[in-house]
Amino acid sequence: MDKPKKHIFVCSSSRINGQQKGFCHSKDSVNLVETFMEELMDRGISGEVMVTNTGCLAICEKGPIVIVYPENIWYGNVSDDDVEEILDEHIEGGKPVERLMIFK
Amino acid sequence: MDKPKKHIFVCSSSRINGQQKGFCHSKDSVNLVETFMEELMDRGISGEVMVTNTGCLAICEKGPIVIVYPENIWYGNVSDDDVEEILDEHIEGGKPVERLMIFK
Repeated sequence: MDKPKKHIFVCSSSRINGQQKGFCHSKDSVNLVETFMEELMDRGISGEVMVTNTGCLAICEKGPIVIVYPENIWYGNVSDDDVEEILDEHIEGGKPVERLMIFK
Repeated sequence: MDKPKKHIFVCSSSRINGQQKGFCHSKDSVNLVETFMEELMDRGISGEVMVTNTGCLAICEKGPIVIVYPENIWYGNVSDDDVEEILDEHIEGGKPVERLMIFK
């Protein structure tokens, strides 16, 4: 494989001891990871855009948290319904989705 | 909190179903996460450099895998003994550690 051009990290509250008890996990972030993966495959860009679940990314009260690197854009309160907009506007369009950004 | 200036992702093979059975986990990557965190705190830079454990980052045969963003530098076969060098040379010195890089 090559390095991904963009890397989407989705907090799934995966603790290093294996427990999943955090806020993002309780807010259905596991489905969010899967929705990102499926949408990237549908679009044929899963080779250049990677999705990875993570442990706690802090700012839990704004979870589920999604970060896109290398841009270092942080999104909060992300739901399944936001995935297409993030991929259309940001990942494919190059313009981050302002309404979901935690840091502006 | 502010956005981190650098973000170190360490594969801990954290699957979204909570299982931890992957290669990096079997190679002691949980300790690696903790060593990074402790070293950052010792250096007083844990506010600007974040460490996060992740699910599988692929290239498992070269695990444990560590990625540093926003540089998008991928390290392989990382052990506890490499943490100080990565922090000295790359994170604080600005020069990635060539001998550990997967993609050159």
